[in-house]
Amino acid sequence: MAAKKKTAKPAPKNAFYAQSGGVTAVINASACGVIETARKHKNKIGKVYAGRNGIIGALTEDLIDTSKESAASIRALRHTPSGAFGSCRYKLKSLEQNRREYERLIEVFEAHNIGYFFYNGGGDSADTCHKVSQLSEQTGYPIQAIHVPKTVDNDLPITDNCPGFGSVAKYIAVSTREASFDVASMAKTSTKVFVLEVMGRHAGWIAAAGGLASDKDTPIPILILFPEVEFDQAKFLKKVDENVKKFGYCTVVVSEGTHWPDGRFLAETGLKDAFGHSQLGGAAPVVANMIQSELGHKYHWGVADYMQRAARHIASKTDVDQAYAMGKAAVQFALKGENAIMPTIDRKSTKPYKWAVGKAPLSKVANVEKMMPNNFITKDGFGITQACRNYLTPLIKGEDYPPYKDGLPKYVRLKNVAVPKKLKKKFEV
Amino acid sequence: MAAKKKTAKPAPKNAFYAQSGGVTAVINASACGVIETARKHKNKIGKVYAGRNGIIGALTEDLIDTSKESAASIRALRHTPSGAFGSCRYKLKSLEQNRREYERLIEVFEAHNIGYFFYNGGGDSADTCHKVSQLSEQTGYPIQAIHVPKTVDNDLPITDNCPGFGSVAKYIAVSTREASFDVASMAKTSTKVFVLEVMGRHAGWIAAAGGLASDKDTPIPILILFPEVEFDQAKFLKKVDENVKKFGYCTVVVSEGTHWPDGRFLAETGLKDAFGHSQLGGAAPVVANMIQSELGHKYHWGVADYMQRAARHIASKTDVDQAYAMGKAAVQFALKGENAIMPTIDRKSTKPYKWAVGKAPLSKVANVEKMMPNNFITKDGFGITQACRNYLTPLIKGEDYPPYKDGLPKYVRLKNVAVPKKLKKKFEV
Repeated sequence: MAAKKKTAKPAPKNAFYAQSGGVTAVINASACGVIETARKHKNKIGKVYAGRNGIIGALTEDLIDTSKESAASIRALRHTPSGAFGSCRYKLKSLEQNRREYERLIEVFEAHNIGYFFYNGGGDSADTCHKVSQLSEQTGYPIQAIHVPKTVDNDLPITDNCPGFGSVAKYIAVSTREASFDVASMAKTSTKVFVLEVMGRHAGWIAAAGGLASDKDTPIPILILFPEVEFDQAKFLKKVDENVKKFGYCTVVVSEGTHWPDGRFLAETGLKDAFGHSQLGGAAPVVANMIQSELGHKYHWGVADYMQRAARHIASKTDVDQAYAMGKAAVQFALKGENAIMPTIDRKSTKPYKWAVGKAPLSKVANVEKMMPNNFITKDGFGITQACRNYLTPLIKGEDYPPYKDGLPKYVRLKNVAVPKKLKKKFEV
Repeated sequence: MAAKKKTAKPAPKNAFYAQSGGVTAVINASACGVIETARKHKNKIGKVYAGRNGIIGALTEDLIDTSKESAASIRALRHTPSGAFGSCRYKLKSLEQNRREYERLIEVFEAHNIGYFFYNGGGDSADTCHKVSQLSEQTGYPIQAIHVPKTVDNDLPITDNCPGFGSVAKYIAVSTREASFDVASMAKTSTKVFVLEVMGRHAGWIAAAGGLASDKDTPIPILILFPEVEFDQAKFLKKVDENVKKFGYCTVVVSEGTHWPDGRFLAETGLKDAFGHSQLGGAAPVVANMIQSELGHKYHWGVADYMQRAARHIASKTDVDQAYAMGKAAVQFALKGENAIMPTIDRKSTKPYKWAVGKAPLSKVANVEKMMPNNFITKDGFGITQACRNYLTPLIKGEDYPPYKDGLPKYVRLKNVAVPKKLKKKFEV
């Protein structure tokens, strides 16, 4: 009966993994890193259960059994954008404010023998992860919570940069260069100004990446409108006109967060449609219309929106590698018994670019927003400095093309098989 | 004195090449085809002079000496988007209406020994090229005019498709797929509808390409708004809502040419800003706001604008090959003594895709717009048929990545050295 005794050995704890907040071109590469690494340590980590639509999946006991996915499918996550298990915008309140949610999490973890909690998200999510990491102490249920950094906004502290940002930055730099070549061709008789709107409501990291489109070999007259700099219409229009007079054309990269001195976003036009609904028109058309009406230059404008953060087809290899490494490191830290931490990207040198995996305590990560340093923006407020270039360039380096079929990238869709529910109680979020 | 006699032999005629109208990701690949092929026949074609900013360069005697460019630079045109010599929007009137322009062209051609005229553009430009091709007959000055097809709108007749279109189509198909993956991830608690605005004021070819994002392996609920179909708001909103209820999310691809039954474009909001200027806000935000106000679904929207036609980083290999082939064929036809024609892409078979170079008389090309066949749009007006897929798929096939440096594509900028002027008279356009 020795064999029977062996099976009676307690099963290793399972892991919970969830994606949170806005998705990116490489968040699935982190998922790939988590799952592939966990699969290599089956003696210590049983199964990886993913939350369907993030933490909501944990609360509603809607878990996905990733062990049902083939190795090939998990490998394909590395080149598939978006959140393969679904994400959510949902922030847990504090234990005092909403004890009910934490009790429910413990119930679900206990029912499914979950001992590891990997949460893949930005600043708000780091806060959720931090709260979960405190549950062992507060409730006695043993859980290790590790945060896997992700955000196109690049605003997490301590880590040199955030997975997701490098690929957006590359897309914006490439698109800005390409569209600038286009407008330069047309400027003699037609369009003279191209305006590109990019993400970044609070910090200008993504807008700054537009500045990389211009370099020594390929100079381009680019003006950047940062959320960090109050919009000065007269000064801006003067600059645009100067560029058009000197170079024949001008490119403008405008952050969605660009705002007037009184704090109103440029995108808030104050206009209402026929039904009385406010029209949210974007910052780019506002800037473009202003250039047309005040300077008379013909314009074109684009809004990169989801295209920029989903553009896995032009992802940065640095970014993909780092996203995977963060997922892998999260599991390795967990195996070493760590709790309440986030793996970080530590820059060791810029030229040549070298980085290593570090770690940061979640208490220092949660709810802290990293802004662009002042010395990254030129004195006139419309450009990026050499220090900024040095920081950004390694992050967009390298291409990591997905496979194609019939002219389109082959992105994986998982089966996302549900783990059978064990709890009788339902939970409403 | 035999050597001297040899040099007295009349120099071969030079060629004029110009880019016209909106530029594309691959118009320079056609320029590359023209110049590389001409360089192989120096006994028959002297130099290739490019018009700076299209036909305006011919009228103002502002010619670029492409022989000053290295073989490597010319080769790099193949992977460089936009118009390397500058383009223009300028249509010659008829000989009767503006004899002065034609007389000027002849003066410039004569002064620079130009016997070949290669014009790289769309329908309007084909008309200009056709007029130039008639100059020999009408003025006695010997000139052979060949049109090189180019237009993202895909609306030239006779040729199966137009260089420039395949790459836009690929960009839109890829971006639609990527953004759809994104919104699908977010739909549970956040964005449920993504709206992407694409080019195509008169014909829905580019919008149709958005439909390719969804296929058997990767089904996506996509609604397409074509300029060919009058916008029916109630029917459209019902479809959006059905998709959101059934799949959790919905993607909308809206052509800039989508219009109300009375002919007004959706983009014409009728709104005025604080200065009384009309606000041209794009079709995407109008559609998005409508979805929000009538259905209450959270949305995101993007406008691909110049990014779509400049996106050489994700160009279709089929398109690049065909653009080059059209430039090469134009020179080969000229060497055979042809005039007043345009090389065409003749589809020989769809599965497997086979095509060959053909030719069409300019009299049948100029000012004829090829619309989408009715059987390419599904009966409900919001999708593409299998016939449309069969037509489009080969055109987006294959990737043809440019070289990169520091994370950015290395696009060439030519020296664009001016040919010394020989005429005393200036010409105002």
